[in-house]
Amino acid sequence: MARTIVRGRYVIVAPKAEGSDVLQDGAVAFENGVIDDVGPFPEVQERHPGARVLGGPGYIVLPGLVNSHHHANGASSLHFGIQDGVLEPWIVRRMGMKRIDPYLNAAYSAIKALRSGTTTVMANHVPGAAATVADDAEAVMRAFDDAGMRACYSLSWRTQNLIVYQDDDEFLSTVPEDLAKDVKALLKGGELPPDVYFAFYDRLLSSLGESSKPRLRVGLSPSNIQWCSDESLRDVRSYVTDHGLVIHMHLLETFYQREYASRTYGKSAVAHLQDLGYLGPDVSLAHSVWLTDHDIDILAETGAQVCHNASSNLKLQSGIAPVARLQERGATVALGTDTMALNDDDDLFQDMRLVAQLHRGPGLASRTLTADEVLTMATVNGAVATGFGGTLGSLEPGRGADMVLLDAERLQRTGLDAVAGPVDAIVYLASGRDVDTVIIDGRVVVEEGRVFSLDEDDISQRFFDELMRQPTPDEQRQAEIAEALVPHVEDFYRDWPLPRTTPYNLYQSRV
Amino acid sequence: MARTIVRGRYVIVAPKAEGSDVLQDGAVAFENGVIDDVGPFPEVQERHPGARVLGGPGYIVLPGLVNSHHHANGASSLHFGIQDGVLEPWIVRRMGMKRIDPYLNAAYSAIKALRSGTTTVMANHVPGAAATVADDAEAVMRAFDDAGMRACYSLSWRTQNLIVYQDDDEFLSTVPEDLAKDVKALLKGGELPPDVYFAFYDRLLSSLGESSKPRLRVGLSPSNIQWCSDESLRDVRSYVTDHGLVIHMHLLETFYQREYASRTYGKSAVAHLQDLGYLGPDVSLAHSVWLTDHDIDILAETGAQVCHNASSNLKLQSGIAPVARLQERGATVALGTDTMALNDDDDLFQDMRLVAQLHRGPGLASRTLTADEVLTMATVNGAVATGFGGTLGSLEPGRGADMVLLDAERLQRTGLDAVAGPVDAIVYLASGRDVDTVIIDGRVVVEEGRVFSLDEDDISQRFFDELMRQPTPDEQRQAEIAEALVPHVEDFYRDWPLPRTTPYNLYQSRV
Repeated sequence: MARTIVRGRYVIVAPKAEGSDVLQDGAVAFENGVIDDVGPFPEVQERHPGARVLGGPGYIVLPGLVNSHHHANGASSLHFGIQDGVLEPWIVRRMGMKRIDPYLNAAYSAIKALRSGTTTVMANHVPGAAATVADDAEAVMRAFDDAGMRACYSLSWRTQNLIVYQDDDEFLSTVPEDLAKDVKALLKGGELPPDVYFAFYDRLLSSLGESSKPRLRVGLSPSNIQWCSDESLRDVRSYVTDHGLVIHMHLLETFYQREYASRTYGKSAVAHLQDLGYLGPDVSLAHSVWLTDHDIDILAETGAQVCHNASSNLKLQSGIAPVARLQERGATVALGTDTMALNDDDDLFQDMRLVAQLHRGPGLASRTLTADEVLTMATVNGAVATGFGGTLGSLEPGRGADMVLLDAERLQRTGLDAVAGPVDAIVYLASGRDVDTVIIDGRVVVEEGRVFSLDEDDISQRFFDELMRQPTPDEQRQAEIAEALVPHVEDFYRDWPLPRTTPYNLYQSRV
Repeated sequence: MARTIVRGRYVIVAPKAEGSDVLQDGAVAFENGVIDDVGPFPEVQERHPGARVLGGPGYIVLPGLVNSHHHANGASSLHFGIQDGVLEPWIVRRMGMKRIDPYLNAAYSAIKALRSGTTTVMANHVPGAAATVADDAEAVMRAFDDAGMRACYSLSWRTQNLIVYQDDDEFLSTVPEDLAKDVKALLKGGELPPDVYFAFYDRLLSSLGESSKPRLRVGLSPSNIQWCSDESLRDVRSYVTDHGLVIHMHLLETFYQREYASRTYGKSAVAHLQDLGYLGPDVSLAHSVWLTDHDIDILAETGAQVCHNASSNLKLQSGIAPVARLQERGATVALGTDTMALNDDDDLFQDMRLVAQLHRGPGLASRTLTADEVLTMATVNGAVATGFGGTLGSLEPGRGADMVLLDAERLQRTGLDAVAGPVDAIVYLASGRDVDTVIIDGRVVVEEGRVFSLDEDDISQRFFDELMRQPTPDEQRQAEIAEALVPHVEDFYRDWPLPRTTPYNLYQSRV
């Protein structure tokens, strides 16, 4: 590929919590997908005569955003008629959702990501039927590859407690016999025994060994502690260590999960993982809402990251993760939308803003997040969580040429130069609709806001056709079974207590 | 004006907390600014042959939104270089802000409102110099009038404790003498003694008596209890009762204000207002974050309303108002942006969505808000708060013809018909950029997303020219004085304690 220079009114060269490196009228030059020069535009241009120049004084250039918790879904469950609500019954309702072609699903999710400036995702794939896992996984990876995006592919794995946080047979013995039978039949097709799970990764790694995929990383994903036996967690840990991969899992999304850990291990979920020798900088933990101070210190110490999902946690009534405290203690936080972004469009700019505002605890003594901290989460830290640490996330020489050009005109009209700085403008004012150009691995994949690595119109149309189609009789039946199960699931948790303790931020006061 | 029929794929006829009245392929007919027919489109059309038809199957029609706490500002203080932060020092920093022409300021705020479907605002005018109050107020009212909008004009009034929640002389005796002198000089120009405040309203009401202004209502606005003597509150109460106006004030925005009430009255701010005989359905209270259960019951009983400002409360580190509890106890809640909307664009659609998600407390026992409840707050309840109760807020016969046509195409692409219903789609998916047409008092003021009651380009340009201009030496000096005062203000509150109590929603847990 020819040498390219990207010029911006502002270039966010390196997001940094303590204050990002920003160039005014700056430029980034790259060749063969790798950045090799950064500086004031006139100087960079002089060093590379004849290079093509993109951008200009009407643009803000920043590193491509990383969505570090993403399920390769084109739409949230709201679009399947399932209202947002408490995670535990919501998951059960999702068991009854219509199936969408996995390629189409992931490709439409990629379109949403690209349109809003996301260049890398943690593609945490929740498989449907076990029989088709390999094909579905291939379809997901192919979709992101076709989109020209970077992805860390991780296959979600559950080995136990598939309906509530209790042994399935034990729980199903408490529901009507016919329903129990239906549910068992429904679960049967989804089982992934350890040998199947690891054989899948063996095959995947050997197939990748033959090719070069600079835009793909691989992770393993035990779904969450209540869904995985200690044995499976240990096996994953050694597999990941042996092969130099990453681990991505959910943790402490709800206080029911906190309560499960306490009942099951007699300690916190984080302490349990630490005791298993599980935590390290190659582990990223989605959600992590119900972390105690002690948990946070363990994360800071081990380098395990939190992938914060602010919108998802509000929508699914999970709570508000203690992100300001995580920052304060030196733990690493990345950001993800969980396909549940505030506006249901996977716009990480909007979710960065929500994060910036949500953790502004009351009063002068509260530690808040700066715009620089939030942008660092969505770039540098996201790169680490997706296995691209040190190679993406900033626009420094040697890093991959992944960047976003925001059309500064609208931001100009909202007073770009009047606000404190361009990073403030990005975090407090920008949105996906300001994205003009997206470059990944040196290739322009979005121009003038249009995705052209994929056929946007065709994929969107086919995706929505699938979304709107009538469910098959089997799918209809599945949804009825799931719905019938919900009251039993709610009953199960009815007496699980909300902790009565001090929050990190007291946002209100009852007395 | 000729008879008009507005047709929609969905028409939200009457937002209702318990489930809105919605027509599919519905229509609303009006003449002379008043709705007189609503029903299925074919029937309405048959009843009014020859009427002009707006909208069509590609639109969602809903009542115009009401922003019930708005300061007629075109930009938040972020655009003046003042970072969002704790209210008390932030207000002091605002004392040093550049002055913007009040007409331009209000007119640009009207453009933002109209573009995002807001048809009515509580124009809570915070005056600059006392000498120009009458002219400035006239400019604000004229701006909304020129915009074709409805407004409730209320002039903010402060009589005491202008710097911190303590007598000014007492507080200024604790700061360096030179600074104290500068601050006193700064405050001097802004004093509004009672006779001036009420004379202003006498003149306003008598001038209005001669004209007919169906789009204007009038309210009085003692700014907040710590800023107003009991005497001034009593005087306002009787004036408002005598003249049939409304009261709009701030209350319990921060826990420092809660603490002030407790120290000053030995009871809560709400209990104090009740004891003054102050509360009633003609009173609306912005913010109201730090309400206790007992306060909420008083509000429900007296009919005094809360104007919830979710974004502002996050940005200024105030907290999260107990809105779900207010709903549960039957208190009335309206919504406002306080010129501090999440995206700084005064888009009430975005803020409705934030409200819908923010109050989703953890776990199955939490009461959450429905989309219908949130839309009711931003329409029917907002009409009450701005003095238009019973005449606006729904599209029923006899109501004013204020409505918004959303282009359903983008919502269609996000699965409009797949989500649970059109009210869900509006609250969970729509945004100001979906606004195609806005009709107020029967007049089309926005078409294809362009405001044409005002010269949008000219006003925007002039507003931003003012925003970007260099401050005058006097303004520069003012900003320096304000900045010098901030550390003393922060010191003043340093030991004021955050309450140690139970929140309504425990979003997280420290231990």
